[in-house]
Amino acid sequence: MTVSDLKFFFRPRAVAIIGASREEEKPGHVILANFLENKRKGRFKGEVYAVNPFVDEILGIKTYPTVLDIPDEVDLGVIVVPAKVVPKVMEDCGMKGVKGVIIISAGFSETGNVELEEKIKNIAFRYGVRIIGPNCIGIYDPYGGIDTFFLPVYKVLKDGRRIVSTPRPRRGYISLMSQSGAFGTAALDYMSGENIGMSSFVSYGNKADIDEADLLEYFAEDENTRAIMIYAESIERGRKFIEVASKVSLKKPIIALKAGRTSAGSRAAASHTAAMTGVDEIYEAAFKKAGVIRTYTTEEFFDAAKALAFQPPAKGRRVGIITDGGGAGVMTTDALETLGMEVPELTGETRRRLKELVEKGILPPFVTLGNPVDLTGSVTVEMYVETFRILMESDQIDIVIVLALHHVPGVADPIELVNELVEEARNFNKPVIACDIGGSQMAVMVREEFDKNFIPSYPSPERSAHAARALAEYGTYLRKKGVFEEYMKKWRPII
Amino acid sequence: MTVSDLKFFFRPRAVAIIGASREEEKPGHVILANFLENKRKGRFKGEVYAVNPFVDEILGIKTYPTVLDIPDEVDLGVIVVPAKVVPKVMEDCGMKGVKGVIIISAGFSETGNVELEEKIKNIAFRYGVRIIGPNCIGIYDPYGGIDTFFLPVYKVLKDGRRIVSTPRPRRGYISLMSQSGAFGTAALDYMSGENIGMSSFVSYGNKADIDEADLLEYFAEDENTRAIMIYAESIERGRKFIEVASKVSLKKPIIALKAGRTSAGSRAAASHTAAMTGVDEIYEAAFKKAGVIRTYTTEEFFDAAKALAFQPPAKGRRVGIITDGGGAGVMTTDALETLGMEVPELTGETRRRLKELVEKGILPPFVTLGNPVDLTGSVTVEMYVETFRILMESDQIDIVIVLALHHVPGVADPIELVNELVEEARNFNKPVIACDIGGSQMAVMVREEFDKNFIPSYPSPERSAHAARALAEYGTYLRKKGVFEEYMKKWRPII
Repeated sequence: MTVSDLKFFFRPRAVAIIGASREEEKPGHVILANFLENKRKGRFKGEVYAVNPFVDEILGIKTYPTVLDIPDEVDLGVIVVPAKVVPKVMEDCGMKGVKGVIIISAGFSETGNVELEEKIKNIAFRYGVRIIGPNCIGIYDPYGGIDTFFLPVYKVLKDGRRIVSTPRPRRGYISLMSQSGAFGTAALDYMSGENIGMSSFVSYGNKADIDEADLLEYFAEDENTRAIMIYAESIERGRKFIEVASKVSLKKPIIALKAGRTSAGSRAAASHTAAMTGVDEIYEAAFKKAGVIRTYTTEEFFDAAKALAFQPPAKGRRVGIITDGGGAGVMTTDALETLGMEVPELTGETRRRLKELVEKGILPPFVTLGNPVDLTGSVTVEMYVETFRILMESDQIDIVIVLALHHVPGVADPIELVNELVEEARNFNKPVIACDIGGSQMAVMVREEFDKNFIPSYPSPERSAHAARALAEYGTYLRKKGVFEEYMKKWRPII
Repeated sequence: MTVSDLKFFFRPRAVAIIGASREEEKPGHVILANFLENKRKGRFKGEVYAVNPFVDEILGIKTYPTVLDIPDEVDLGVIVVPAKVVPKVMEDCGMKGVKGVIIISAGFSETGNVELEEKIKNIAFRYGVRIIGPNCIGIYDPYGGIDTFFLPVYKVLKDGRRIVSTPRPRRGYISLMSQSGAFGTAALDYMSGENIGMSSFVSYGNKADIDEADLLEYFAEDENTRAIMIYAESIERGRKFIEVASKVSLKKPIIALKAGRTSAGSRAAASHTAAMTGVDEIYEAAFKKAGVIRTYTTEEFFDAAKALAFQPPAKGRRVGIITDGGGAGVMTTDALETLGMEVPELTGETRRRLKELVEKGILPPFVTLGNPVDLTGSVTVEMYVETFRILMESDQIDIVIVLALHHVPGVADPIELVNELVEEARNFNKPVIACDIGGSQMAVMVREEFDKNFIPSYPSPERSAHAARALAEYGTYLRKKGVFEEYMKKWRPII
């Protein structure tokens, strides 16, 4: 399979909303409105058609009774009709030569209607139509202007206030596939809030046809995607998944969150999707074998993806920490050691150079030249940058974490500090992670400034440590496979 | 000891800033300005005096050469003079009859000057002056209008923008003591951002005199404090701590974050405070014995405190989950089981009543009546409230977690949902935790509305699970001690 195989889902020349509706709250209305809006704004480049046999016009465009009546080729069908009507609509799509359909409609295997799902699979197979879904929310792709989310961006409260409720993230470098539509929606809300940005999102629901392995292959080739996230409760084609993931993970990092990993969680998942989550040890082994970075919590999932999309993998597990707060340094060290990372003592040339900074008067005598290097509350921008350079150049250190707590009086303008560190970091291909604790305007600005310059930043020592773990795990896997050097030769920073 | 023993630190009738300065960036200036500002706003009710032998006036008030020259009794001295001058100043305070001093100045045992610290301890002992510090940032108490933080709220960037950098949290119900000043500053920034609110904060630095045990006794009696947080890298008076904490924990929950728990972390802590962190197993056992809830990450620390301040302890470990997103339900279940909590199947009367809701048509037939109860994306406010009531009334459930993902179309006004749940929750003394995932305006509003009504809310399933764990751990401890029923008889909701 090559990337073109699924491209019609993400860059269709023409899309038909089958089950388009005049009623504002209906999915068939919201999805049509999304496409028309994206077309108007120049984000969606294809043609948009509405299919509805009962009305002539919706949102100012003519409707067609069936997809067969559309006087144009149609690449993609978005199906939002009741489950029992889906087979008929699928026959039409097959006859029309539609390449792929996204079936939003629910009421298939997830509610026990296995036969109905088999039926649509057979029709699709007969005509060679590919399916995403059913029982899904489909695709959000900010580069292609695709948005099949049926939840409007705004909700209007009873007091009249119009509130952003289901935001769509801006363009970015991370792709996410999610078995759960609700988690997908929440994930996009989360990513919007963190301002991480996204290259593409697919909710694939019951995966009657397209599943994790297919999407991995697509995202591996997608030029905007630098890291691939998978939220799954079950992976059925295990062998295929391992085969594909093993290839893809040599090119791009894959990060997984597998829900239903405990016995109670697995039971809950079974009643959610009617899928067997399977013995967790099998997933653990499969992810490990295929070089998939496994995460265990929502925050770890996104934090790891951000680090892996923004920074190169780490050559090893040795972390150098620079801090202006002793406590935060200790907490970072605790978290790293708990995760199996190393915070080595600095010796030899590295230590000699740090001592030199003290002798030259660049660092005051009371700083701690251990690891963490504690520059104390007396830190200045110059102290940060000079120390940072030495750790970046040290062959004792594979990753640098900068705990840039912005409160210190000697850093009058924390944004200036960020920019100086960013500038310095550009000289190296060694991964850097930043942390600033707090919810103040300044804390938010500092983290945004780091993120904007693709140094991943986090609001707690422990989350920084988890991000470092992800970079080390991926690098270690690439080295084990003997491709680390080659990978790094090709690796380019985003800017 | 009774509460009045330390009250002069938090409600002094008169305070002297010793080392007050005219230079805006100096600690002696910022602290004086804080007190004058708080006095002007009516928050600080006492008198404010400035001590500086070199100038006559600072910020519009007369200065005195020494504390002995002040023509009034002084309860509290805030000392910001260089370390070597502190003994002289302490002698003055002793002679003046000052009851307590906060020594902000650094340069004592933390930098090896053990003798100098012994000297001031001896002076204090001789005169009966109590000490907070040295090497600390002192007290922030929004009820008493005390603010000895030497970091101004704002920083001015080079481009002229004035940015909130070191915010002070609003009044609330949580007290925090921190050995590390930098972590304390970051913590206050964090709590401001989360809008949690705070009753009192103390940074106690080298603890030449007052330490964790003393502050525990004070906060146990403080009427505004409902939960007590301790950030420590070392606890020297271990036996005393256990003795006091064992008593206090029967009245109010104590939550600890002990940094330096790994070998590398412990080494880092030693170079930070020159204190031995000790073998972690000893702390683990001590906390357990004394009923202190131990947390391991920054987020857990604050999340647990919020839950314990807002909600009653849980009778047991059995959690009932209501969700509108299957995936989030599964993730919550995974997290709970990993933490040793139970997510029991619902049987008997509870199950019968849920089934009745389906029979009555209040719940649609396709909801999952397991645990989690998955009300699906078709959920309405009524469905939430009716299901919630049944779980609150169930004797199979000790804590209820509501995953109120606000995206669902059937909940037109998510704030209305929150208020209905809050209303219903008021009928019970069973703990409730809420979760909404996302960073959108609506997600933030939903969580704020829960928090405002003292249902602690979190942005991820896993953080909700950790909060539930804290409530169960505290309740289990109280039951083990045979005081749970008595505790609950006295327990009152905040409103």
